Amino acid sequence: MKLYDLELSGNCYKVRLFASLIHLDLEIIPVNFLEGEHKAEPLLTLNPFGELPIFIDGEIILRDSQSILIYLAGKYAGEAWWPTTPHLQAEVAQWLFTAANEIQHGPCSARLVDLFNYSLDKNLALAKSTKVLTIINQHLEHREWLATKRPTIADIAVFPYIALAHEGGIDMSDYTNINRWMNSIKALDGFLAMPGI
Amino acid sequence: MKLYDLELSGNCYKVRLFASLIHLDLEIIPVNFLEGEHKAEPLLTLNPFGELPIFIDGEIILRDSQSILIYLAGKYAGEAWWPTTPHLQAEVAQWLFTAANEIQHGPCSARLVDLFNYSLDKNLALAKSTKVLTIINQHLEHREWLATKRPTIADIAVFPYIALAHEGGIDMSDYTNINRWMNSIKALDGFLAMPGI
Repeated sequence: MKLYDLELSGNCYKVRLFASLIHLDLEIIPVNFLEGEHKAEPLLTLNPFGELPIFIDGEIILRDSQSILIYLAGKYAGEAWWPTTPHLQAEVAQWLFTAANEIQHGPCSARLVDLFNYSLDKNLALAKSTKVLTIINQHLEHREWLATKRPTIADIAVFPYIALAHEGGIDMSDYTNINRWMNSIKALDGFLAMPGI
Repeated sequence: MKLYDLELSGNCYKVRLFASLIHLDLEIIPVNFLEGEHKAEPLLTLNPFGELPIFIDGEIILRDSQSILIYLAGKYAGEAWWPTTPHLQAEVAQWLFTAANEIQHGPCSARLVDLFNYSLDKNLALAKSTKVLTIINQHLEHREWLATKRPTIADIAVFPYIALAHEGGIDMSDYTNINRWMNSIKALDGFLAMPGI
């Protein structure tokens, strides 16, 4: 299994983190992001969106970090991380979509501005961050994990850009339930760090 | 099964459309969007994000249109619309995340500006629309459906805001593969329309 990877990308990191948690070996292929290797061939054929990560397992090519988590959990980790019962699966899925939308356009975008000089609306990203972080902090008031009674790929998908939010200038100190939840993730057997976390 | 619904929302429509395709009865509860009923109690407790649709099936409350499709397909429609094989499921999932992110912030946002006077960056929405529509049009060059050899919830999730893109001032005439694909969806047994489609 190969992962076309950028070390500083939270989306790439969520795949590395989950692989580490389920004790799966990935061949990491670093991509020269600054030179736009991901926006040129041959990578552009593997992912026409011109983004990372890109994941390859034999004939299977996947382009989206949440979808890669779904694949790895379903194929190599089983029921616990990605339930097959429809209502539990949908509970987990809700947070995968929150990662792909509200987290991506909130804390992730704020960090892209501060760390990589992306031309995005920082104030909009901060407003979206406050909204989604407040909701998640409230959601975790009486819960240890986001979706079920144990960690799932929902937690893995949402964690990276919240743990990196301080790099976008977001003060996390008041989100006490989120901080407790982040510590629970960091305490998981097989946890893997990245720069900034 | 209840759906808190807004007739003009493509996200609500994708749930109504899929329920119709699998011959499932939904109790439709119209929400007074203009008066912000979705941003007030009791709906705000059902969905803290203050958005529609909200779906209820007995004890189960779901807040995200893609997750509702996953639930309905897994519980009531079976394998064909939402495969259980990991790599096929991940193929479908990729397009669900495209619907939640690139479509939402592309053609959906352009329409929100034109139709509902949302204060969003229209030029950014149009640029994102061009990118995602070009990729999807190319993807459909030799494919009838987005993810597998038959329609899946990927097609249902991506369809609404592309079919409504003209309401955001997007000229769809050059996307010939997308137009063929939209006609295939409209020809499905049980297809349901909405205003603008």
